[in-house]
Amino acid sequence: MASTDIPDIVISRLPIYLRALTRMMDEVNPNTSSKELGERLGISSAQIRKDLSHFGEFGKQGTGYDKKKLIDQLRRILKVEREWDVALVGAGAIGHALAHYNGFLDRGFRIAMIFDSDPHKIGTQLNGFEVYDVARMSELLPPNGIVLAMLAVPAEAAQLVANQLVEAGIKGILSYAPINIAVPETVRVQDIDPVAQLQRITYYV
Amino acid sequence: MASTDIPDIVISRLPIYLRALTRMMDEVNPNTSSKELGERLGISSAQIRKDLSHFGEFGKQGTGYDKKKLIDQLRRILKVEREWDVALVGAGAIGHALAHYNGFLDRGFRIAMIFDSDPHKIGTQLNGFEVYDVARMSELLPPNGIVLAMLAVPAEAAQLVANQLVEAGIKGILSYAPINIAVPETVRVQDIDPVAQLQRITYYV
Repeated sequence: MASTDIPDIVISRLPIYLRALTRMMDEVNPNTSSKELGERLGISSAQIRKDLSHFGEFGKQGTGYDKKKLIDQLRRILKVEREWDVALVGAGAIGHALAHYNGFLDRGFRIAMIFDSDPHKIGTQLNGFEVYDVARMSELLPPNGIVLAMLAVPAEAAQLVANQLVEAGIKGILSYAPINIAVPETVRVQDIDPVAQLQRITYYV
Repeated sequence: MASTDIPDIVISRLPIYLRALTRMMDEVNPNTSSKELGERLGISSAQIRKDLSHFGEFGKQGTGYDKKKLIDQLRRILKVEREWDVALVGAGAIGHALAHYNGFLDRGFRIAMIFDSDPHKIGTQLNGFEVYDVARMSELLPPNGIVLAMLAVPAEAAQLVANQLVEAGIKGILSYAPINIAVPETVRVQDIDPVAQLQRITYYV
């Protein structure tokens, strides 16, 4: 199961499968099929079977997938059978929305520390967390075992703060800055850019 | 240039190329190359050339791409050479962050109307916009020519509101709800789910 062998596009779909299966746990039937899952997601059943085949045998001919089991396996593959502490950097409007978002906890993540560079924000409370000075990330993140960060700072500051996060031992960054952030190969960045997504929509409209 | 012929994964990269090229306009050299662009983005130059080749001939052997020209062509392909009015549905924390986000305008989008279902929010102002009742979407969206929406409502309400958006003539939805929304084939949905992105990161960490 060497991670480099599996295309990233496959990995990007696993959280979507996990999300859909988790919602389908409310339903009576403990099993599902690639056909049913595909219909819910607008993905072909062949694609789903092919994606999952990278990780071994999951379903059974005829009975399909045991939802609970497949959820457990996807959680293990994505390493969210545990809970990850995440640093939130940036206590502006986006940071505020993230700090109050209640969808992290039951899916493997917990905002554990909040940082900002604005003297007016440092020392204030955000959803029960003290906002720390970004200058203290190297001091505070490693002893707390935090290797993930959400970056919600203005585009102009994003690369500098990303550098500081890398120095502080961060291994994964979810960035809300609409720029491409350069990091060492050992660090993984995903960005969330609403405009890029809107442009992807308008292509089809 | 039939849109159905081009893989969606290619389309998803075009906004990223456009974003990077736009930032590179600050630099002296009016030209760039697939090699330079690839290095900035962590994408192979062959991939970039292949992606762009779907849309015709852009670069010249030896001199590379004229950045300004390539930007104009990408804008035309993505249909953001014009400005799109967008409805924002949901005036909670995420809606608040989106309403105050200043990165839309120069990339082709403008929040034009805001809706919520909460009687306490309806009639209030959000960043200069009156918050309208979601029940009025069918009345207000078509005469204003709005075909795009950002959906920032709780997961439980998202499918219902999406149905109402479709009835109101919306053709593209950027959804912040962490669920898969079912829409007719004529409507395009992209979702932004920070947890799915974090899970994609933890796979590699």
